[in-house]
Parts: sequence; C-alpha cells; structure tokens
Amino acid sequence: MPSLQGAPRFVRACFRQKVDRTPVWFMRQAGRYMKEYRDLRKKYSILQLAKTPELACEVTLQPIRAMPIDAAIIFADILLPIEPMGARLRFAPGPVIDNPVRSAADVRRLKDFDSREGLSFVLRAIALARRELGPIPLIGFAGAPFTLASYLIEGGPSDHFLKTKAFMLEQPKAWDQLMGKVRRITAAYLKAQVEAGAQAVQLFDSWVGCLSPEQYRKCVLPHSRFVLSALKSSGVPVIHFGTGTAGFLEDFASAGGDVIGVDWRLDLDAAWGKIGARAIQGNLDPTVLFAAKPVLKSAVRDILARACGRKGFIFNLGHGILPQTPVENVKAVVDWVHAWSLN
Amino acid sequence: MPSLQGAPRFVRACFRQKVDRTPVWFMRQAGRYMKEYRDLRKKYSILQLAKTPELACEVTLQPIRAMPIDAAIIFADILLPIEPMGARLRFAPGPVIDNPVRSAADVRRLKDFDSREGLSFVLRAIALARRELGPIPLIGFAGAPFTLASYLIEGGPSDHFLKTKAFMLEQPKAWDQLMGKVRRITAAYLKAQVEAGAQAVQLFDSWVGCLSPEQYRKCVLPHSRFVLSALKSSGVPVIHFGTGTAGFLEDFASAGGDVIGVDWRLDLDAAWGKIGARAIQGNLDPTVLFAAKPVLKSAVRDILARACGRKGFIFNLGHGILPQTPVENVKAVVDWVHAWSLN
Repeated sequence: MPSLQGAPRFVRACFRQKVDRTPVWFMRQAGRYMKEYRDLRKKYSILQLAKTPELACEVTLQPIRAMPIDAAIIFADILLPIEPMGARLRFAPGPVIDNPVRSAADVRRLKDFDSREGLSFVLRAIALARRELGPIPLIGFAGAPFTLASYLIEGGPSDHFLKTKAFMLEQPKAWDQLMGKVRRITAAYLKAQVEAGAQAVQLFDSWVGCLSPEQYRKCVLPHSRFVLSALKSSGVPVIHFGTGTAGFLEDFASAGGDVIGVDWRLDLDAAWGKIGARAIQGNLDPTVLFAAKPVLKSAVRDILARACGRKGFIFNLGHGILPQTPVENVKAVVDWVHAWSLN
Repeated sequence: MPSLQGAPRFVRACFRQKVDRTPVWFMRQAGRYMKEYRDLRKKYSILQLAKTPELACEVTLQPIRAMPIDAAIIFADILLPIEPMGARLRFAPGPVIDNPVRSAADVRRLKDFDSREGLSFVLRAIALARRELGPIPLIGFAGAPFTLASYLIEGGPSDHFLKTKAFMLEQPKAWDQLMGKVRRITAAYLKAQVEAGAQAVQLFDSWVGCLSPEQYRKCVLPHSRFVLSALKSSGVPVIHFGTGTAGFLEDFASAGGDVIGVDWRLDLDAAWGKIGARAIQGNLDPTVLFAAKPVLKSAVRDILARACGRKGFIFNLGHGILPQTPVENVKAVVDWVHAWSLN
C-alpha cells in the first residue's frame, strides 16, 4: 500500500483508511442521463467519443463539473479491447460483433496486442483527464475475462448466455485459451491505464451473475484472479465488481480486489460479512434514482445505516445509472451521502 | 399434514418424508421443446390451449407420456387470472397488456372474481388431468402477487421493472390495494385448484429477483405470506419458488411454503442452510440441458452430492425449460436422478 497521507477520501476508503465523509461516485456517471452528454452524442457516436482523447476526457469531466463526486471514471467502453483483438464491433444501438468467436480456430485467430498501440487513445484520454481533474482521483477500468468472453461469443444481446455456456462447458480447452488471451490483454491494459495516470482501476464482471457458483469457480475465477493478482504491484486500489453475485460472493471475493463491488440484490451488511476485511462498494438500486425524494432518501439512509460507519465503504449504485435518470436526484444523493456520513 | 402412507415420492419429499428415489420434474416441462407440443401449437394459440380443458389436459400429459417424471403440472399461464380482473391480454409473442395499471384509479377498476367462474377452464382441465394421471401427482400453480402485479403494471417486457418499482415505491397505498386484490384472487384461485384435484400447488415469484432485500421485505413479503398462509389448511404441499433470491433467501423462505424453489445461482447446500427444516426444489441451470452428456451428468451429480441424501429434496431446474432444449437430455436427467438416488 502506498503512503495515503493527504490521499483523497475515495482512495483512502479503498484501502480501509479513516475518511472525513463516505466517498461517492456512480457507475456510468458520464452518460445519457446528462444533457451535456446527450448534446455531444448528437454529433458523435459512442466509438467516436471513446476514440477521441479530447472528447473522452470532456465526457469524463462532465459529471465532475456538475456535482461534487469523489472520483471520475474514464469514459470508455468495456468492448474497446476486442477490436484490436480482431473482432468487428459496431453499435446498433447495442453492441454487435459481426465475427463472433464460436470455435477453437476463432480463438486462435484472436490477436494479442500492446495497449499502448491498440488502445493508445484510452491512455491519452486518461493522461488528459488526469491533468484536468486536479485533486479528484481518476478510475480506469476493463471488462472482466468472463464478461468480455461472453460478448465475443454471443456477438450480440443474449437472454440466457446459451452460446457462452455451451462454449465454456463443452470446449474447455478452447475456453481456457480464450480466457488466457483475454486475461493477459486485460491485465496489461489495466496496468497501462495505471501507468497513464489512473489512480484506481475497476474490473467489471457485469454478466457473471448468469453462472452457477460451480461454473464460476471452475471456469471463471482463476482467470479473474490472474488479472487481479497482476494489478497488486500497481500500487493503486483495485475494485472487483459483479452483479448477481449474492449466491457466490465468497468465491467472487476470493478472486481478489481491494474493494468488492456488489449490486442491490443483497443487504450491504450481509455482503460485507461475506467478503471479510475488505472495502465494499455499492449498493443502491439504480431504479430508486427515479423515485420521489423521500423514497430515495430512505433508501440511501438504509445503506448508510448498514455501512454503520465502518472503514472501507464507497457509496455507489449496484449497476450503472440508467439513461432516463433525473440528474437532480443523482446530485441529491451525493449531497446526502456527504452530509449524513460526516465524521 | 395428511397421512402420507402410500403417497407418491414427490408428495412425500415435499413433506420431508423418506423416499425410495429423489423425485424429479421440470418447470415448463409441457412446452416448446417437445415436438408434440409444437404440433399442437401449429393449430392453437397459447390462450386457446390454456382455455380448452381437453387441450390443456393433453399438453399436461405430453411429458408424462414421454418420460417417468414424478409429477405433472397443469398446463396454464400465470397471466390467466388477469383477464377476469379486467386486463386486456394478448401474446405478441410475449405477453402484452393493452390497459396496464398505472394509477390508483386503475387499481380500483380491477375486478375481483370467482375462479370457479372466471377460470373454470383451468379447474376443469385439472379435474380431467387428475383422472388421466392415475398415480402421478398433479401440481397446480399461480403467479405470486409481485410477479403478477409487475405484469399488470409493466404491460409488456421489461428490463429493469422501472414502472413497477416506481408504482411500488411512490404509490404505497395504491400498491397495497393492488397487492391486496391480487393476493386474495391468487389465494382463492389456488384453493379452487386444490378442490378441483391439484395435489400440490406452486407459487411462482419469477421476477422477485429484481428487488432489493429491503424492497422485498417491505412491499412484497406480507402479500406472499398471505397467499401461502391461506393454503396451509389445504392439506397439499405448497412450493414457493423464486429466481434471483440468493441475496434474501431467508426473507423469501420466511414468507412460507413447505418447499422452497431456488434457481441455479447459489449452491444447493448453502441454500438449504438458509431455509431451515424445509424441503427444497432445484437447482440445475436450464442452459446445462443443452450441453453434451458428460457435462450434464457432472452438473446433475454435483446437485445430488450437495443434497447428500437429506430428506426433502426435489430435483428440478432453477427456472423453466428453454424452448430449444434437446428432449433426450431431459429424459437422461430423469433417469440419472432416479438411478443415482436409489435408497
């Protein structure tokens, strides 16, 4: 752990140090719920925004200018690494991959690459944003191996992840080769983000909740652990986030991470009991941000009560902000968390 | 509890009595994965099948003729009760309600009704099927209040149940009135199914996993408990099923049910530890039925190992059989469960 004297409260909380107030940020805090973002999206596609460092930096800063949140997260897409791997990606409007991975031969064709070349625009955006942010810490991120692999295999939206599970269960060697490539790329990409200036990184295992605990332990956990272990020497806190993990949170946490990110489908205190002496991030239901203020207030109060002033709590949602979310409610949550958690 | 001497192994397992082999049935075992069902669907819509007792009985029997499963479940749709309540329901192909519930006035307009009139076709189908089934027990079912209410409010497919949660959180009085109507109708409907011949009933809370534990406890649990308590005097076992309940399984189980049905997102033994001295039903991932035999075998073995010969286990999936599932794999699971669990 680096010296944390004078470190921002978000970084201190990640390492379970005393903080003056509970830090708060929101997954997908740069996004469609903000008018500033929608205005930019009238002119640029998601990929154009993500691939133009100045624009990605600008989008990263939008929520920071709008409210006193405790961390910025670089504007990017978890699918960006699959393009230099050789996947043909487009948004229609959801992500579609025209050459999905369906066989061992497809896996062999996937290219390894150097993030400093294939994803240099993200690293430049990080360097730019870091300069602009001043004292606000910047979070880098990547999709976890399972979530990235499931996109590569499904090639589009999926209800049941049938193709992913068939591949994973029936072609275990090809699966391990695929996960081996994805995990190496992901670890190197996150390290490169830290070198470019990211002061924390988050690994998003957004779709891991479709798995049984046994599937997770056998086919996924070792690969997530590889990435999380590789980041240990980086000196920055690592957040390991997943949704639908209530049934195997101990296993999920055992893969690693300084901070475990949980969704809203379990009580924060119960979740904390399962992950041991680790920081935790969560866990407001994103749909509650649509509710009237008294309802929203009471949900925020409930989470803070369950955190109960323990060290190592970062307030966040249980998944990303939804597009139609009222901005004023997001701002209100920031103010309440800061006010009510004053130590 | 009624006398269980000579009762079928499914009923005995529900009441945690000794059985010769682990009983097995499948949610949505009468459905599109069977050629016999697809052939009928070429001639009749889902609603025509459900509303014609002879056809509903025929569909109920199809899987029973095809394999030695331990229980039949009446062919019906959980949305059938909303039509006599006044909702205009159609399948396109998923369910669409043209007059969704959005206000307290909409709730007031919902009609109470007598199942023996409004849903007489289900009760006649149950009587018919019961006669045809001989020693195989017949399960009746209904949607749980939350799941039914969420359909009434959303009026169509939903990713985030935004409208349902907004209604539930912001119009608590109207919500309680809605749940009050739905729970009375549901309890009476299930009782009528038992009177018509159902030897067990299952309450399906299919969408309850979108809730936070706190939302479940405050807004849903009391209404599920009302239905489950009302069935206690019926003499038949009551199965309380939900998906995505890993984070609040204790609360879910505390609402009632002789048997708790769980999905595949948690280990069976861990789930059992949370529900106490109760029978459990589950918990194979439905997508594993698409896998090659060795993979499927190992998943079935894992579940039986976790059940570990304890009394009160009913083998099932964690949710319904998916439409493209290979029939021969379903049959193989029945044979394996029966063979491997021989006492």
